[in-house]
Amino acid sequence: MDRRFGELSPPERLLMGPGPANVEPRVLRAMALPVVGYFDPFLFEVMEEIKELLRYVFRTRNELTLPVSGTGSAGMEAVIYNLVERGDEVVVGVNGFFGARMAEMVERAGGKAIGVKTSLGKPIAAEAVEEALKNSNAKLVALVHGETSTGVLQNLEKISRIVRSYGALLVVDAVTTLGGCELEVDKLGIDACYSCSQKCLSCPPGLAPITLSERAMEKIRERKSKVQSWYLDIGLIEKYWMGAERSYHHTPPVSMLYGLREGLRVVYEQGIERRWEQHRINSEALVAGLEAMNLELLVEKEHRLPPLIAVKIPDGIQDQAVRKQLINEYGIEIGGGLGELKGRIWRIGVMGVNAREKNIIYLLSSLEKVLAAEGYGVKLGKACEAASIFYNGLVHRQTT
Amino acid sequence: MDRRFGELSPPERLLMGPGPANVEPRVLRAMALPVVGYFDPFLFEVMEEIKELLRYVFRTRNELTLPVSGTGSAGMEAVIYNLVERGDEVVVGVNGFFGARMAEMVERAGGKAIGVKTSLGKPIAAEAVEEALKNSNAKLVALVHGETSTGVLQNLEKISRIVRSYGALLVVDAVTTLGGCELEVDKLGIDACYSCSQKCLSCPPGLAPITLSERAMEKIRERKSKVQSWYLDIGLIEKYWMGAERSYHHTPPVSMLYGLREGLRVVYEQGIERRWEQHRINSEALVAGLEAMNLELLVEKEHRLPPLIAVKIPDGIQDQAVRKQLINEYGIEIGGGLGELKGRIWRIGVMGVNAREKNIIYLLSSLEKVLAAEGYGVKLGKACEAASIFYNGLVHRQTT
Repeated sequence: MDRRFGELSPPERLLMGPGPANVEPRVLRAMALPVVGYFDPFLFEVMEEIKELLRYVFRTRNELTLPVSGTGSAGMEAVIYNLVERGDEVVVGVNGFFGARMAEMVERAGGKAIGVKTSLGKPIAAEAVEEALKNSNAKLVALVHGETSTGVLQNLEKISRIVRSYGALLVVDAVTTLGGCELEVDKLGIDACYSCSQKCLSCPPGLAPITLSERAMEKIRERKSKVQSWYLDIGLIEKYWMGAERSYHHTPPVSMLYGLREGLRVVYEQGIERRWEQHRINSEALVAGLEAMNLELLVEKEHRLPPLIAVKIPDGIQDQAVRKQLINEYGIEIGGGLGELKGRIWRIGVMGVNAREKNIIYLLSSLEKVLAAEGYGVKLGKACEAASIFYNGLVHRQTT
Repeated sequence: MDRRFGELSPPERLLMGPGPANVEPRVLRAMALPVVGYFDPFLFEVMEEIKELLRYVFRTRNELTLPVSGTGSAGMEAVIYNLVERGDEVVVGVNGFFGARMAEMVERAGGKAIGVKTSLGKPIAAEAVEEALKNSNAKLVALVHGETSTGVLQNLEKISRIVRSYGALLVVDAVTTLGGCELEVDKLGIDACYSCSQKCLSCPPGLAPITLSERAMEKIRERKSKVQSWYLDIGLIEKYWMGAERSYHHTPPVSMLYGLREGLRVVYEQGIERRWEQHRINSEALVAGLEAMNLELLVEKEHRLPPLIAVKIPDGIQDQAVRKQLINEYGIEIGGGLGELKGRIWRIGVMGVNAREKNIIYLLSSLEKVLAAEGYGVKLGKACEAASIFYNGLVHRQTT
């Protein structure tokens, strides 16, 4: 091979898409620390701290709370594959790309996915879940808390009570919500929850925090068949992560664990409620600016997911042209739509360290200029003005 | 939670166990660079370079050559699960822990593993593989190139010809051999090969390079059933990693990809043959020192795996006591035995940046002192003397 491979020199992007978000600098520093072996007592300490910190952010006392060695979808696969056996019926809320993915995984696990569907941009109705439970033998209900493809926040309180009343377990995808909006695993009676590292926790992608209730663990222990993934078999992972024995399963991604610990430590120092608040406030400032540009949002206020705002692309405006200008001229990444929403929406993320006034203001001001250049009727300055007024109002409220 | 989480401060270990090895400093620096999004043109460039560099280290032209987003066992699962369908018979060489793991995964994939067994510390005989092929309908043979649990290097030439003559595909576990000893994927007619990042490539654990021949890809494309892992479905991963379309599958672990690219770049700059040589030489120096201490090796010279030397624990010497002293007093990690070899062998790794004279000498000198303290009859200085003579001989040979 006669080829030169140069020095790696990534551009500095402001990542305001659906994730990854920018990484907390302390996390990157932690990842550069020396790697130790998988049986090193120091690593076991780090693992114990990660479990404690994850329980803190998930708001749970679940013993089995740990990061799976893969990205968010590996967390989804771990939860679904361990809880579903061949022939099991599973009620799955499908109002976007990630609900559909859960249904796909249920089917691959040999289960039967009973999809509870609604239009994109709407949450799943509790009544529809109850209907599906009534008309099936499902003992598992899987829902997406924050549907990253549409920006819908699913209310879980009522559904959780229904699920429990049918003696079923509740699985929740918190990929976009963990650390970014209110999520109370224990209070809500969630039995299995999974997330990712690269969104509201501001770590790089590569780990999937999961937590499983004692009821979920019982179901896993009572399985008649082996879990069809060896790599994601909770019973095997548990032997390494929990208890005194520490049986070797696979070599964990040590540097990523260092990073996750640091990311969680940052959340812990800030306080989880304050972090939720930080996401909510900055998301509302973004919305104020977008609305001042007369842009229409996909989701009604009531069901809007703070860390991810879906904006309808105005008629006559080209999706790609706008996103390319944003990234090339301003260094800002926002996301496009997935599946049938491709070309119809933009997805703007307000996640982790990016959930800050300076980023919101810069994004709004840049988007405004790009839209104006593309012929969209918008008066420069309106978006920032609206966001600034919003932020000022907040400061006033906070200081009085 | 009323708990303090302090600054992360890992001990500096010399990792001379079965992996992870110490990480190349350039790799850690690369991992601290800014993360970009999964559709960023810059990331696509990095991915293209990684594919090229992986083809270079695997010695292959296989189009499908990429890192799977998990540790080495995820690479094993990806290869086995994509190539095995329910009911398939698979011949698996089982002469250690990792061969047994492959057999386990074949069974979880619904296949029937036909184990070709031999005693621990011996390679699989070509004749036994032929026998198994003759007496079955297997169209897949899976072997471990470097059995990390015993330190056996499997010769593949003859077996490969046999496998081909039966119209079967050859799967090879190169977790411990990639970058650490001669491995010629194309010349040997290997159809599917997987490895890890944390051994002879000196990156942190977290990625599993894999390569699949066109014949293997055909088998995957002709599957009658879906791959039972969604996360590791090559057909889906291919759509993101290969070709122009770049369909989103899962968010890749960007920082780990940066690290892997840098680790591979280091190998490329050195030259793969020189790297193999570096591992061979330092491994032989280690062996010279161990033999000078009258320690017995598990594997005969002919079948010894350069990156991993298995040493029999002398009678009357306590496994744990020795390893604890090594790590606590000298900061050196070596590995214990797995499964039935627990307490019976130590596993000493000579991997990646650790395959250097200064580490070999320090390890030998420390081990000697610890063994002497534990009552093993060894004269201090003998091991280093033998290794030094070996190194001097080399320098002499190299300079004349």
